[in-house]
Amino acid sequence: MSIIVQKYGGTSMANSDCVKNVAEKVVRSKRGGHDVVVVVSAPAGMTDHLVNRAKEITDKPSGRELDMILATGEQISISLLAMAIKALGEEAISFTSAQVGIFTDENHNKAKIETIDTTKIIKALTEGKVVIIAGFQGVTKDLEITTLGRGGSDTSAVAIGVALKADEVEIYTDVDGIYTADPRVVPNAHKIHRITFDEMLEMAGSGAKVLHLRSVELAAKNHMPIHLRSSFNDEMGTYVMDEEENMEQALVRGVAHTTNNAKITIANIENKPQNIATIFKTISDANVNVDVITQNVVDQNRITISFTVAEEEYDRALRLSNDLGKQLHAEAVYGTEDVAKVCIIGVGMKTTPGVASRLFQCLADQGVHIEMVSTSDINITCVVSKVDYAKAVLAIHQAFEL
Amino acid sequence: MSIIVQKYGGTSMANSDCVKNVAEKVVRSKRGGHDVVVVVSAPAGMTDHLVNRAKEITDKPSGRELDMILATGEQISISLLAMAIKALGEEAISFTSAQVGIFTDENHNKAKIETIDTTKIIKALTEGKVVIIAGFQGVTKDLEITTLGRGGSDTSAVAIGVALKADEVEIYTDVDGIYTADPRVVPNAHKIHRITFDEMLEMAGSGAKVLHLRSVELAAKNHMPIHLRSSFNDEMGTYVMDEEENMEQALVRGVAHTTNNAKITIANIENKPQNIATIFKTISDANVNVDVITQNVVDQNRITISFTVAEEEYDRALRLSNDLGKQLHAEAVYGTEDVAKVCIIGVGMKTTPGVASRLFQCLADQGVHIEMVSTSDINITCVVSKVDYAKAVLAIHQAFEL
Repeated sequence: MSIIVQKYGGTSMANSDCVKNVAEKVVRSKRGGHDVVVVVSAPAGMTDHLVNRAKEITDKPSGRELDMILATGEQISISLLAMAIKALGEEAISFTSAQVGIFTDENHNKAKIETIDTTKIIKALTEGKVVIIAGFQGVTKDLEITTLGRGGSDTSAVAIGVALKADEVEIYTDVDGIYTADPRVVPNAHKIHRITFDEMLEMAGSGAKVLHLRSVELAAKNHMPIHLRSSFNDEMGTYVMDEEENMEQALVRGVAHTTNNAKITIANIENKPQNIATIFKTISDANVNVDVITQNVVDQNRITISFTVAEEEYDRALRLSNDLGKQLHAEAVYGTEDVAKVCIIGVGMKTTPGVASRLFQCLADQGVHIEMVSTSDINITCVVSKVDYAKAVLAIHQAFEL
Repeated sequence: MSIIVQKYGGTSMANSDCVKNVAEKVVRSKRGGHDVVVVVSAPAGMTDHLVNRAKEITDKPSGRELDMILATGEQISISLLAMAIKALGEEAISFTSAQVGIFTDENHNKAKIETIDTTKIIKALTEGKVVIIAGFQGVTKDLEITTLGRGGSDTSAVAIGVALKADEVEIYTDVDGIYTADPRVVPNAHKIHRITFDEMLEMAGSGAKVLHLRSVELAAKNHMPIHLRSSFNDEMGTYVMDEEENMEQALVRGVAHTTNNAKITIANIENKPQNIATIFKTISDANVNVDVITQNVVDQNRITISFTVAEEEYDRALRLSNDLGKQLHAEAVYGTEDVAKVCIIGVGMKTTPGVASRLFQCLADQGVHIEMVSTSDINITCVVSKVDYAKAVLAIHQAFEL
């Protein structure tokens, strides 16, 4: 059997015409000789609508009851899609996660898939049916309904692909792949045909939020290729896959950027480990996500800490930082929302020296001042002034011949 | 344990305020010392909305997939009600029929409940929780989702009451009980406090469509009292229950009527059993429900057949009857929509002679011409001209001192 798992998101299920369009794509794959398993999300907007219905009842809906109501969204999608496929003359059957046996732990609203019973899926495929499964949701051994958290349908699709030893998982979305840079910034950015899991994880973490991180991690761990493609055309998209010999040739795979950043600096505090621990524990206890962190030495005993946060968490983070500044006797605390993040990503960097210096030279040539730098094996991130980010991305895209 | 099963219909779940109102009623019962199990329908209008979504996809949605989508309506109701009850400080837990184990046969869209696993319900009640169960739906041994047909939530509630050996099943609706006649026709009609199952079945069949017939049959078979009452006030409603000694005193329990009837007559055909069989097989094969049937002898070898159907099926039934008339060499076929049905119902009739003659005298006094008569042990039905029905109902109500 050549099994393909296809995942369609909420915009692909938004209304009856969308559902029929998806049915046609599925039927083409089926008639192309594949056994097709389809994983779908709730119709666009429905999850928000259901959350609002719950909020009308109570400020703090219980996690269990919230999962109970949220799980109805995908159940509506799977039944409509099954009807639409049958109307095109192919056999199809829909399953909730409880019917399949997509077993998760008991963490409502953020459950993790533990095992998947493939019996019913295999049986239906053997009978020539297209199998349609509700994404985003699972069930515990006690038949309690759970959900996987936002974007969880991607993870459902990959987990089902792994359980079925599928050839690949196709994730259909409103973009047609991963690009070497944001085409709105770099007009001649082009689609990346193949990208490694590690590169994809860095891209996702650096602003190219196309795939849910957990789904990429799961695919990487299980060597399950993901084909990310558009639900609006039939073009090839981007393959996210294991590193291969000939993929090494690309030094830098792409440039990513984010502009919704803010930077906070706590200047000139005593250099002792407890101080740093106190800062980041205070910030994380307030549920603020810290992104890039840099630490500069003022003199032997004094340091300055800078970090970035998302713009929407800036006010909260700055208030906390002002308190921390007093507590730790900082010389000053200052913040700015005038920062952007520009990153280059590529597994080729691991084995090629001088990439960072080429990057810095390129930015210097453009007169772009680098405020912070952070690096990993396959990622170099620079924090720059917001007005400079487009210039930086364009120059980098050209300098690395993307 | 003193267990009460409460059933709330779609209008009681129509919006957040309605759901909160139901939660308050449930909590009052719980704090009154009862173990409470609540069975709910989908929010008003939702089932129609979902059927329309399906119809947008295909003219003939498969029964299985239709059940899949319809079952989401009650799942939304149960979770919202559980949240609302918890918000009032009582513990509550919602269950789909699959989670409880409300097992049905495999007839999608009109499944029959076979067994109910009470383990989870009893466990939750023992833990002090209000248990909320999705009505209208069931599950097969294979975990296929089924629905019981329109009005099936009443049947769910009674079946759950029977399985739990509940004290009674309270069915909350938008009327506050069964009346001796339609209060819009008879201003001094009054609420019946107790009515037998048999009388209720006749009332329901004769126009007082408050309870789903199957639910009354199930309650009758299992001697489970139903308390039919309003969800908008706390007054006592009507108890539907086994016949008791002191209930015999009422000769006639009530007068019911329907006005959406039409009458068809196939006049003067040969009196042989096959002719009658042919007529009613042809009509029922076309899915037309025949209600009252009368047969008059023309002479030793010839008869005239009359029957009533619902107004909306009249055109279809008349076309079929015209064909039948030709086939059976009838003298004529004629039909009219100008008929109404008036019925008196009461277990007392069984043992009291002369009820029919009192009825006929009463109608004669009013100058009401009787077109057809049909009787059972506890029901006398007269078909009259539509313009006469209100006069007839008023006169009967007075004549039998209701």
